[in-house]
Amino acid sequence: MCGKEAAVRLRYANLWLCREHFLEFFERRVERTLRRYGMVREGDRIGVAVSGGKDSMVALYVLSRLGERVGFEVCGLHIDLGISAENYSRVCLQRVVEAFRELGLVYRVLSLKKEYGFTVEEAAKRVRRPQCAVCGLVRRYVLNKMALEMGVTKLATGHHLNDFAVFIVNNVVHANYAYLARLKPMLLARAGLVARIRPLLETPEHDIAAYARFLGIRYADIRCPYGAEEPTKVVGRFLEIVEKRSPGITMMMVRGFIARCLPILESRFGEEEVRACKECGYPTTGDLCAFCRLLRRIGARR
Amino acid sequence: MCGKEAAVRLRYANLWLCREHFLEFFERRVERTLRRYGMVREGDRIGVAVSGGKDSMVALYVLSRLGERVGFEVCGLHIDLGISAENYSRVCLQRVVEAFRELGLVYRVLSLKKEYGFTVEEAAKRVRRPQCAVCGLVRRYVLNKMALEMGVTKLATGHHLNDFAVFIVNNVVHANYAYLARLKPMLLARAGLVARIRPLLETPEHDIAAYARFLGIRYADIRCPYGAEEPTKVVGRFLEIVEKRSPGITMMMVRGFIARCLPILESRFGEEEVRACKECGYPTTGDLCAFCRLLRRIGARR
Repeated sequence: MCGKEAAVRLRYANLWLCREHFLEFFERRVERTLRRYGMVREGDRIGVAVSGGKDSMVALYVLSRLGERVGFEVCGLHIDLGISAENYSRVCLQRVVEAFRELGLVYRVLSLKKEYGFTVEEAAKRVRRPQCAVCGLVRRYVLNKMALEMGVTKLATGHHLNDFAVFIVNNVVHANYAYLARLKPMLLARAGLVARIRPLLETPEHDIAAYARFLGIRYADIRCPYGAEEPTKVVGRFLEIVEKRSPGITMMMVRGFIARCLPILESRFGEEEVRACKECGYPTTGDLCAFCRLLRRIGARR
Repeated sequence: MCGKEAAVRLRYANLWLCREHFLEFFERRVERTLRRYGMVREGDRIGVAVSGGKDSMVALYVLSRLGERVGFEVCGLHIDLGISAENYSRVCLQRVVEAFRELGLVYRVLSLKKEYGFTVEEAAKRVRRPQCAVCGLVRRYVLNKMALEMGVTKLATGHHLNDFAVFIVNNVVHANYAYLARLKPMLLARAGLVARIRPLLETPEHDIAAYARFLGIRYADIRCPYGAEEPTKVVGRFLEIVEKRSPGITMMMVRGFIARCLPILESRFGEEEVRACKECGYPTTGDLCAFCRLLRRIGARR
């Protein structure tokens, strides 16, 4: 592009780019994703849910850099899950707060232990359910609550292209078509629910790693000790082989799904009727939402 | 089941069965597939398209055995493609004719070379297209023509559960949703097109091999020298790993697709408008069907 030595190779685009041109390319693509799916508009207050890992940290940095250009505000959200194994939550918290301060953002950190009196590990043990299930439930609920309290108009997560691709194949294999219908670039706000956006939807994981390296982003370079479930890893390895054989196919697959399959899934599997949780007002299909049922079962204070 | 020594293990059903109980189990399942999707009715004349390989030979035997019970007639169709490499077509022809005679069926064998003056190998070379593409086109066309001439009401193929599973994932990866919409248990007859049925749709490949072994079916135990394309093999290996981890998931995936995804795909990707080919009357979107265009390009006689 400019004659300088290339710093990164993008196989799917058959491009070799220097640091500066890569950063420009990367940010332009995220901006295009935001515009293509109508994820942001001027005056939005985007809350980025940051775990401290590579993906959400990059989402935080790229949105902060784009905010000024596009005209939205960015703030940070983090949950301290209290996972003590391998010091996981401590390291994450440290990296996240460093980043929030470096970027000069309004932010909020919520400690599960301080706020509700339990950690994810304790809750999972008490209700005898897998860590990952309890953690997912807690994060969904608490991030939404934090976002509402902070006046966030849209909650952004770090899900990237490869996450989406794995999710698509995994749900086809499990014939979970109702789940697939929810795999949207943006989930609109509903009573009690903040809108959610996935700005890295069209960004390959490989590029996210390069972006973090070039910007010197200090993320928590450790995986959650409870790890992702094995089935998803098998799907991920399969898709890596497919992408290696046909560079660019992952992008084509995800865009094709969103453009040609998602609309018809949505028309069939519309959103179900929900009402407000009797305890907290959060949308639920029963009387109590899953989070309030969890609190009851472990006898936690609100 | 009966105390006799088990001859086969079905992991997905957690069953060990002796030869007799396996044969019964196998045939009952095919019968259930036929009924569930309304594939046959009394008085049908089912033409089985037999290549000579394991799957289509088993389809031939099981349908012959079920025909009497359910009340339909079975006849055999085979195309001699003239693939000389590794004696492929000669071996196939021999096995197929042996089977047709052993079962005492009405049958017809068509030699591409004798009927149209070319083999698949020659045609592919002349039009510079991949063997598999030319072969697929020729088989679809010629089998339909033979079936019409033989008074066949439904044309049966040997596609099994694992074929379907691979096809689903492969088309999701390639975002070919219009193709996916055609992955039906049964394709209804249309002007110029005989109905097609897939009676082994719910039968795993592993069971087909066991059935062939127990019945002593002598099939052509060679693969086409031009082989299946690599991409499909990658998908197959991935699905084998998935099935090994979660026995039964392939069945769930295919049934779930047919029950919950296919109907909505069909409603979106309806059949396109077609007209009759000017040369032969076969349905086509253009003036000439793909087969007649092929004949013209290679200057073959009809």
